[in-house]
Amino acid sequence: MNIGLDMMGGDYAPLEAIKGLKLFLDEYTGPVTLFCIGQQENFTSLLEEHKIDQSRIKVINAPEVIGYHEHPAKALKEKQQSSIAIGFHLLSSGKIDAFASAGNTGAMLVGTMYTIKAIEGVQRPTIATVIPKLNGTTGLLLDVGLNVDCKPEHLNQFAVLGNLYAQKVLGIDKPTVGLLNIGEEEGKGNQLAQTTYPLLKENASINFIGNVEGRDLIQNKADVVVCDGFTGNVILKMAETIYDIAVHRKLEDDQYLHRFHYENYGGTPILGVAKPVLIGHGISNDVAFKNMILQAVKMVESDFCNIIKSAFHSEKVD
Amino acid sequence: MNIGLDMMGGDYAPLEAIKGLKLFLDEYTGPVTLFCIGQQENFTSLLEEHKIDQSRIKVINAPEVIGYHEHPAKALKEKQQSSIAIGFHLLSSGKIDAFASAGNTGAMLVGTMYTIKAIEGVQRPTIATVIPKLNGTTGLLLDVGLNVDCKPEHLNQFAVLGNLYAQKVLGIDKPTVGLLNIGEEEGKGNQLAQTTYPLLKENASINFIGNVEGRDLIQNKADVVVCDGFTGNVILKMAETIYDIAVHRKLEDDQYLHRFHYENYGGTPILGVAKPVLIGHGISNDVAFKNMILQAVKMVESDFCNIIKSAFHSEKVD
Repeated sequence: MNIGLDMMGGDYAPLEAIKGLKLFLDEYTGPVTLFCIGQQENFTSLLEEHKIDQSRIKVINAPEVIGYHEHPAKALKEKQQSSIAIGFHLLSSGKIDAFASAGNTGAMLVGTMYTIKAIEGVQRPTIATVIPKLNGTTGLLLDVGLNVDCKPEHLNQFAVLGNLYAQKVLGIDKPTVGLLNIGEEEGKGNQLAQTTYPLLKENASINFIGNVEGRDLIQNKADVVVCDGFTGNVILKMAETIYDIAVHRKLEDDQYLHRFHYENYGGTPILGVAKPVLIGHGISNDVAFKNMILQAVKMVESDFCNIIKSAFHSEKVD
Repeated sequence: MNIGLDMMGGDYAPLEAIKGLKLFLDEYTGPVTLFCIGQQENFTSLLEEHKIDQSRIKVINAPEVIGYHEHPAKALKEKQQSSIAIGFHLLSSGKIDAFASAGNTGAMLVGTMYTIKAIEGVQRPTIATVIPKLNGTTGLLLDVGLNVDCKPEHLNQFAVLGNLYAQKVLGIDKPTVGLLNIGEEEGKGNQLAQTTYPLLKENASINFIGNVEGRDLIQNKADVVVCDGFTGNVILKMAETIYDIAVHRKLEDDQYLHRFHYENYGGTPILGVAKPVLIGHGISNDVAFKNMILQAVKMVESDFCNIIKSAFHSEKVD
């Protein structure tokens, strides 16, 4: 298995990427080769310094870098020798099986949509985040920002995508699926929620348990929660502040509050596209990089994208 | 000043209402008479037991009670002798200046809309919640559930209503107003946010500071944040779980986390209607009741509803 890692992504690139790579290689002993893509002269000495086992990596030189404030589509088009452009080229040509970057999010999305493309039948690829629950389990919330205006059929597809990600990557057996809403009963909510409910109820490929509310997100009510990307993004960013609060109040050692630290998330997977792509947080540290690589490995190991292809090829879903 | 208090509202009625009333009377020494509305035989002995100064209250017998699971409009119509129906009757006839209840929320809303009515020019009355900020100040978020599908002009009016509530009741001098969104720059967001932004920007009666994100809600970025009632309700319920987390992790004594306890909120004010109405949490305890009565007093003292009438009567807003 070959995993592509953008060495130039993240506010502390390439140091934290290198440290994360080291953590990953120390932890994971399976047959994985890491394709380290970036400005070679900027990180090869660091590889030696951090005693990275050179037999388990492959250095791919990418002389250009896409910055955080560059226009995504324009930068990707003009900087064909950037780590992100080369990463997508390697992914689409099959030289790597997954691509992970903490770089320019917009460029990662544009690259995914135009180079990797949506799986047939998937109307809207989506991004998801994990939500730590009080009982120690992990839930999944989607969409968290890729699709700000949604139709009911989009949410229904998010449910299928999230359900499979929860099973195959998070390892949740028979995940329960809930619709984010402002009341428990069917018929509650805004127009989108009201019209989505019956679709989810009739969807035989998921275990729909009904509406869940804001207070249920950290409770053990549903493993997978679907919503539009506007609401989901607000929740994602609010959930991240729970760890900020912990730090501010000097409670960051609390076992539960610490689980809201972004480093535990790894990256944000793009679901519904033909190959595994993971986008990391700009402020990613070594642990975040390690977890993002591990996520990529899990997506490849579980053959996640082919499972999605089959699911959307069957009549059940479409 | 006469404040109406529903003695039958709340899961622990009438005991917590009585205890809250006692806390209020001990704290507030101004010229206020509390109209205690409810099943007289169920609470008059408690008034004596808790040494309530009978010269500062007036007992209004309401032989009927509207339960939590009754259909709001139907119950209100059929139970004219219920504490909620009598409360609205007293409010509309001017015998009380504000009405507060922790009873059936739907019945409170129906009573407000049909008996008290929206102020001329207000398209959609709204409900707001306070959000404790890390720096010790208090922000306001609205709408939090009354208007689940909104148009830009509704959010623009919420901004005016929230701005005035923040000034007159929360005591915030020149409040800043933000639009809840998923990015900082103008042009970001879903259709609603994109079309609302220019309206807020051009609104001379508020101090609009642009978009705020989920992470900014607890930061000192904007005093007043507007959003649709679906998103706002999800946030409200998620914010309430911050105190649940604190209790679960035995951190409820933390000075900041404790501020998320519902009892500090008092009640939820309905903004944009002709007279002050406050809806309390079903699980209201004595402190919650005390704070709800205090809020009612502040709304009357500040002549809040007349200020709103003037604001919506002027050309600036409409």
